[in-house]
Amino acid sequence: VSQTTNLGAGAEFDAIRRMLARWGNAAVGIGDDAATIALPRGDSLVVSVDSAVEGQHFKRTWLSPREISYRAVVAAASDLAAMAARPLGLLIAMTVPVSWRDHLDELADGMGEAARVAGTVIRGGNLSDGAELSINTTVLGAAFAPIARSGARAGDAVYVTGRLGAPAAAIRALESNRSPGEFRERFARPVARIREAIWLAERGITAAIDISDGLVADLGHLAAASGVGIDVDAARIPLFDGVDVDLAVSSGEEYELIVTASQALDEREFSRRFDLLLTRIGVVTNRANGGVEVQHASVARARGHDHFSG
Amino acid sequence: VSQTTNLGAGAEFDAIRRMLARWGNAAVGIGDDAATIALPRGDSLVVSVDSAVEGQHFKRTWLSPREISYRAVVAAASDLAAMAARPLGLLIAMTVPVSWRDHLDELADGMGEAARVAGTVIRGGNLSDGAELSINTTVLGAAFAPIARSGARAGDAVYVTGRLGAPAAAIRALESNRSPGEFRERFARPVARIREAIWLAERGITAAIDISDGLVADLGHLAAASGVGIDVDAARIPLFDGVDVDLAVSSGEEYELIVTASQALDEREFSRRFDLLLTRIGVVTNRANGGVEVQHASVARARGHDHFSG
Repeated sequence: VSQTTNLGAGAEFDAIRRMLARWGNAAVGIGDDAATIALPRGDSLVVSVDSAVEGQHFKRTWLSPREISYRAVVAAASDLAAMAARPLGLLIAMTVPVSWRDHLDELADGMGEAARVAGTVIRGGNLSDGAELSINTTVLGAAFAPIARSGARAGDAVYVTGRLGAPAAAIRALESNRSPGEFRERFARPVARIREAIWLAERGITAAIDISDGLVADLGHLAAASGVGIDVDAARIPLFDGVDVDLAVSSGEEYELIVTASQALDEREFSRRFDLLLTRIGVVTNRANGGVEVQHASVARARGHDHFSG
Repeated sequence: VSQTTNLGAGAEFDAIRRMLARWGNAAVGIGDDAATIALPRGDSLVVSVDSAVEGQHFKRTWLSPREISYRAVVAAASDLAAMAARPLGLLIAMTVPVSWRDHLDELADGMGEAARVAGTVIRGGNLSDGAELSINTTVLGAAFAPIARSGARAGDAVYVTGRLGAPAAAIRALESNRSPGEFRERFARPVARIREAIWLAERGITAAIDISDGLVADLGHLAAASGVGIDVDAARIPLFDGVDVDLAVSSGEEYELIVTASQALDEREFSRRFDLLLTRIGVVTNRANGGVEVQHASVARARGHDHFSG
């Protein structure tokens, strides 16, 4: 059963009704076998699905139910940002064990909030019983010219949004039963950089990816898809206060963007507009074997070159 | 991680590579943060998501892994048929416990087969570890004029495709540890009636729904959405060999179609073309309180009317 407002009897339908009531105008057009969406003429559909499974992607003790469902939806929405697509809607297939039933309202609230923050709406879904909480979010977007991972070319500059490291620092603290302190907010309430991506796409970026696995890992995905190498200046990587560069480059679930551009981007204008850093951290190379090299200042000097001296 | 061919190290990526190899040309365009799909000009996007969770929607002992994943995808694709949409692609978010890992190839094969039977391709997905097998399928389709549940009007004829009851008869046998015999095939290998739905939409049907909950339950959904009543002649309901009408009207997971039409449909032409019955089983009424009445011949006669005498 999916996309149902003309609901029959039963606990599943009652639960869906409750969620719809909490979503209010964050849910649209629910009530048929499928949702129908008009695409702007000339645009391509951009779609992705992402899963958040209890014990695999989150720990129940680290986050509130509302934060768990909020993060699940943001992680999916971030894939639209990575393609510079405008969101058209979300479908959410959720498995909710009995032990989570008392938190259904909070789960609904987190999803509704994530939809609003991303500037989109929930257009359908599915609710199942099961052994573990699992939130599977399909994001639908539109773009005239989606930005792929594969467009980076040698000589392009490499930029990253935001300051990195807080999610990894928060997890490290939580795993040691320490308070995550100021790292917690960035970990619990990330934001998909959708508006930022569209702004960047309008300024001619050549490739983009969001940071879900970590800066170096995701630079590696982009480099592999583009058939290029990437050199990063470690000293340029924007660090969250109190995080060192080693942690920052491996910190996942940042949902910041990595983009490449053949012409300089206006970092100050970006920062002013979005209240968010945009930092040039490296350069695309034609290194035959591809891959990512993070160059610490001493290494770069020893090699007699510095990509960022200009 | 989703939509990835430029995969990094790790068991998840290895598993995705294996599935992609088995899917062959049943998977298309995988390898970026999201899939990009062009829609035919003027068409609306039609999307739905459906979940199959172990122990909730299927029992491991009743079906092979290939049948389980095949059915999961067909159940989702059937929502496109219910809207008379042409399929554009599938996204599959799957949670696979360790105990299922040895069956990953068979799970992939069932999905690939279901995609081919539905005339579509897999365009992305997500693979997670977890405690129970869960297959969440998003179906994407396009239609110039999607057929909703809400278009039925008093006086319309009500039709159903196929012969009903085999899935319920198979489950009844399996629950009693009897062999499901000839019921098994219809239960294990249903077909989404996509081509049939498009043919019917071209002939002006007014509403449609697929039978996932059972004939009477889904007629009820259609009646409620349309704000009408529906009278069904029990004697007209097409029965699978060896199934009685009481079982047939409550048999779910049929994935046959219910449609309403203001003009007579050519049942013989339909049956010839699709090797599948199309049967007029009832009529839409303007009964104020809506709902579905299944009228057995004796009842209809006692009331002094028979909607199907003409």
